[in-house]
Amino acid sequence: MGWVRQPNQHSVQGCIEAALEKIDRRTHTIAVAGRTDAGVHAKGQVAHCDMLKEWIPKQLMGALNHHLRPHPIAIVDCRAASLEWHARFSARQRCYLYRILSRVSPATHDGSLVWQIHHALDLDKMRAAAQYLTGQHDFTTFRSSFCQSASPIKTIDVINIESVPSWSGTEIHIEVKARSFMHNQVRSIVGTLERVGAGRWPPEQVQQALAQRDRRACGPVAPAQGLHLMSVGYDDMMPSNHTPQ
Amino acid sequence: MGWVRQPNQHSVQGCIEAALEKIDRRTHTIAVAGRTDAGVHAKGQVAHCDMLKEWIPKQLMGALNHHLRPHPIAIVDCRAASLEWHARFSARQRCYLYRILSRVSPATHDGSLVWQIHHALDLDKMRAAAQYLTGQHDFTTFRSSFCQSASPIKTIDVINIESVPSWSGTEIHIEVKARSFMHNQVRSIVGTLERVGAGRWPPEQVQQALAQRDRRACGPVAPAQGLHLMSVGYDDMMPSNHTPQ
Repeated sequence: MGWVRQPNQHSVQGCIEAALEKIDRRTHTIAVAGRTDAGVHAKGQVAHCDMLKEWIPKQLMGALNHHLRPHPIAIVDCRAASLEWHARFSARQRCYLYRILSRVSPATHDGSLVWQIHHALDLDKMRAAAQYLTGQHDFTTFRSSFCQSASPIKTIDVINIESVPSWSGTEIHIEVKARSFMHNQVRSIVGTLERVGAGRWPPEQVQQALAQRDRRACGPVAPAQGLHLMSVGYDDMMPSNHTPQ
Repeated sequence: MGWVRQPNQHSVQGCIEAALEKIDRRTHTIAVAGRTDAGVHAKGQVAHCDMLKEWIPKQLMGALNHHLRPHPIAIVDCRAASLEWHARFSARQRCYLYRILSRVSPATHDGSLVWQIHHALDLDKMRAAAQYLTGQHDFTTFRSSFCQSASPIKTIDVINIESVPSWSGTEIHIEVKARSFMHNQVRSIVGTLERVGAGRWPPEQVQQALAQRDRRACGPVAPAQGLHLMSVGYDDMMPSNHTPQ
């Protein structure tokens, strides 16, 4: 049901806070680098919490993982941080990966981890379109109308588009890196780039859509299940995608 | 529930035969290259069937995939074969991959596709032990006591052991190739090599276990869920792991 705690739902936040409350008996509210929507996956999510007593990080990780069962949530690393450090506000870069599976026959093993399409994509056209989106822009076109971000001005550092051989067909991996994102921004960008790759939009239409600063100019929003939060970078810590313990 | 059709169970064979019977109205019994056990995965399985009428292969594939829903089974390629050709008896090589995930925190996304262990493995020791198993041997030690194979003499062409960086930790990939295998042979080999990698067996003990030709000398059998049938090679066809349509 996504990251954010909701009544009577198994959210990631809710499950981790419930595990914390079993070992540190009071109400917990944890802060997180990226509030993923329902269906979105996270390999390199980062969150922080305050604990009443000192813990050996490895033991805290083991205790939390014990109480997280049987939910498909795992703490893969655990470290002490300074009181000033904040999982959300200290973050310097978020890296998202969007996986598209292009093949005719249905996905099996990876069905819930990719967006399956049945046609080929022209990656050169998608890369040309992506160039219009990198750098600092007003991304009003590419954010959800529910987005609560104060400003629509964001800076995208990188959009990499690669074809990746995979067990289950041809996968197209779209990697997007920025200091921060707005709600649905990556999925709005991916859904629009897919239209370009499919030949339905000329690459220049993406530039025009961006310039319109109008949500209605955006392409379709790509489904949640293909999106993966891969890592979060901080000045004073290693990125979260180092080898887990 | 594995490949083999069973009453009141959703086997892979049963589901494909039921789909065939919807489009070619009589009882079907399909032949297969590798009869996978329950929990074992197959990316490059090959099966054949006889059809009453001529089909355009792509249309047959689409019709079968339509009737296979919602089962997690997909036909990824479909071709006409000569009457002499047989999915099982014409096969010249089977390639299996066994995936071990080594990390402390629980597997999440790939939980059903790997064997998770919580300790490190010494790959050099495992490779030294694997050398005793390549080539032609009597594999009585490494086959299930239920195995119906006429002879325990088999030839293993290759055992490759690699450490693979993965989103979810350190994966150890063990690739085993042979013309044919006996029941539980790959899982018996992997379970034994894991004991070597964990430091519990010296590599030479694998040579001794093989020489004993006694099932009781085998290490533990690795769980089904880490095993993947990757491809089947034939003289007169491309291997089944080419890019699917």
